[in-house]
Amino acid sequence: MRVGILGGGQLARMLALEGAPLGCRFTCLEPSPDPPAGAAATIVRAPYDDPEGLARLADAADVVTYEFENVPADSAAYLQSRVPVLPPPAALEASQDRLAEKRIFRDEGIATAPFRPVDRAEDVTAALAATGLPAVVKTRRFGYDGKGQLVVESPRQATAAVERMGPGLIIEGFVPFERELSIVAVAGRDGSRVFYPLTENHHRDGILRASRVPAPGLAPHLQAEAEALAGRIIDRLGYVGVLAVELFEAEGVLLANEMAPRVHNSGHWTLDGGPATGGGASQFENHVRAVTGLRLAAPVLTPAQNSAPAPNSTTGAAHPLVGAAAMVNLIGAVPDLHALAAVQGARIHLYDKAPRPGRKLGHVNVAGPDSASVAESVRRVWRLLPEAGPLPAAFGVQPT
Amino acid sequence: MRVGILGGGQLARMLALEGAPLGCRFTCLEPSPDPPAGAAATIVRAPYDDPEGLARLADAADVVTYEFENVPADSAAYLQSRVPVLPPPAALEASQDRLAEKRIFRDEGIATAPFRPVDRAEDVTAALAATGLPAVVKTRRFGYDGKGQLVVESPRQATAAVERMGPGLIIEGFVPFERELSIVAVAGRDGSRVFYPLTENHHRDGILRASRVPAPGLAPHLQAEAEALAGRIIDRLGYVGVLAVELFEAEGVLLANEMAPRVHNSGHWTLDGGPATGGGASQFENHVRAVTGLRLAAPVLTPAQNSAPAPNSTTGAAHPLVGAAAMVNLIGAVPDLHALAAVQGARIHLYDKAPRPGRKLGHVNVAGPDSASVAESVRRVWRLLPEAGPLPAAFGVQPT
Repeated sequence: MRVGILGGGQLARMLALEGAPLGCRFTCLEPSPDPPAGAAATIVRAPYDDPEGLARLADAADVVTYEFENVPADSAAYLQSRVPVLPPPAALEASQDRLAEKRIFRDEGIATAPFRPVDRAEDVTAALAATGLPAVVKTRRFGYDGKGQLVVESPRQATAAVERMGPGLIIEGFVPFERELSIVAVAGRDGSRVFYPLTENHHRDGILRASRVPAPGLAPHLQAEAEALAGRIIDRLGYVGVLAVELFEAEGVLLANEMAPRVHNSGHWTLDGGPATGGGASQFENHVRAVTGLRLAAPVLTPAQNSAPAPNSTTGAAHPLVGAAAMVNLIGAVPDLHALAAVQGARIHLYDKAPRPGRKLGHVNVAGPDSASVAESVRRVWRLLPEAGPLPAAFGVQPT
Repeated sequence: MRVGILGGGQLARMLALEGAPLGCRFTCLEPSPDPPAGAAATIVRAPYDDPEGLARLADAADVVTYEFENVPADSAAYLQSRVPVLPPPAALEASQDRLAEKRIFRDEGIATAPFRPVDRAEDVTAALAATGLPAVVKTRRFGYDGKGQLVVESPRQATAAVERMGPGLIIEGFVPFERELSIVAVAGRDGSRVFYPLTENHHRDGILRASRVPAPGLAPHLQAEAEALAGRIIDRLGYVGVLAVELFEAEGVLLANEMAPRVHNSGHWTLDGGPATGGGASQFENHVRAVTGLRLAAPVLTPAQNSAPAPNSTTGAAHPLVGAAAMVNLIGAVPDLHALAAVQGARIHLYDKAPRPGRKLGHVNVAGPDSASVAESVRRVWRLLPEAGPLPAAFGVQPT
């Protein structure tokens, strides 16, 4: 089957590398020269709204998907007139606008931080009455990796932020969360669903630095809760493909922060989290299976016994197994490859991108029998990172 | 690093798919149109002995490797004058000639079936005196998948075979072996070695149909013996890369049958044999690591406890785990992809080749906690194969 992808970055690269063994061929529409996906896909070099480029992508594809949510609406509409576009463009619209997204969460009974739309300084007082302080002022559109966000501590700061960033903003109450989690869900064309275990994510400067599964000490009901809320979004949007939902855990409750209608950085560990007895598939393979209409494969790792029950999946893991995994992003610079390759158990995933500060250049996955051994591997990788900053405390030495 | 490959078939395809995450870029010299490796490599379309094609391959590569052993000697010599060629061409020469190969085995004290070179009918009587009957008459060069081989039961049959097939033959005593095994070894540029567990192989009509690990009931010393004999070949040839040695097990003894200086079909299970706690690499990734000078990664699966001790590897598995895996070749026809994708735990690897009788079009890997669960998955896959013939008895229902 021929799969078209809007975008040719690392997500497209990994979709193509993971989808090739299923016999799929990939074509990406991508304006930049020598993009990461070129390793395993034909590149149509053109802007995302270029009519000729879009036509060539449609010609080369039996189904089109995308690796980012800011797909121009006209592009999606044109492609949809030619071939199936999955996930459905309705999901694009929702995730392009933080306000629309939050309203979907609210409508579906999914808890969020309090939020209010704000366009002008005059809206600030009423908004803060709903959200409280501190709060976060965010652009409704085109934010990523912490860009377009500002934490404000006073009405004066909030007003200044709105005057500078507006219009088209949202103010959200600042949630004193204990940790950030995410759930990666996959919906098949046949209605089947697969959920990966809740992943604990560690950000710095708004950029994901590391993830791990299982999330230690996770209350057993939270996995089921996360699957249920992702399922409601899937139902509402008629969703097909991978859907990631970013969550805050605060006082034992999950609050939805945002969603991504695509494969997600917090699911990169699924490339290597597979126990011998799982025989499962990564988020990338399952996204390709979903959009091409193949049956989904079982997730690669089932939650540990102190976490949730087996995923609520119509496919299900044939042989549930316990284990642990983690992912470390390579940001700004790639460590010495020989040193990295010498770390046993470090699974290297480079994106073949030119280094630039703050840029995601690759990631390293580790898997192990338990969180302690995984944390040890993470520490060995971390020591090699030129610009990693401090190790998230979660991966520090724990009393046993 | 830029890796050149002579050949663009499925082995090159899997080398490129597995090597891309290490940041390598691949260019293949391949005469046929639309080859499997095109999914993840740039193709230079030219014959293997085309000077311009070879020059373009050398231009595009920091190191050159190959996916088949019948590389023209002049091509290897030219490439070696331009860039490192690994495994070393001495290994090509040895494995291109069954007689040279068997003499290496003999010189290294590695047991083989009795053998004699034969060119003419007049040599037959003396040769059979050494080999006994039945015997196998083989062409010394260019045999693969059972082609260029004939079992003979009498001096008359042997003479007829030699008259038809000769000159340039070898006669080998027919070994009443219990089973066929193979060892996949990897030698790094730094002298390190990694060995995958002995794999049990099942052929029909000279073509590998299925493999499994661990080889049930394997005597504990045989893994060490296989590693030692592969190690002697590596030493003798100054070998770098994956080396596969095909073996017969006969009355508790290993006899070397032939070797392949490349990634090998009997090692395809290593793509998916990785337990969560292994964090290891496939034969493809380790071959790329070897020829590019990176440290080797631990094998994906360690032998089961009733098999051998942990592999004699300078890297070693950080977290030895027990499990089982199997590989089923898709030959002549690809089963319905939707049905195959619905077999949970079946890891699909298609080569994107046009179907043709006897042609290897893909393979399916399964992994599980033990041989019984793996055999069950193999049976589910086998039922979907249009032209598979009988299931090897090894995968039938076993008394538990």
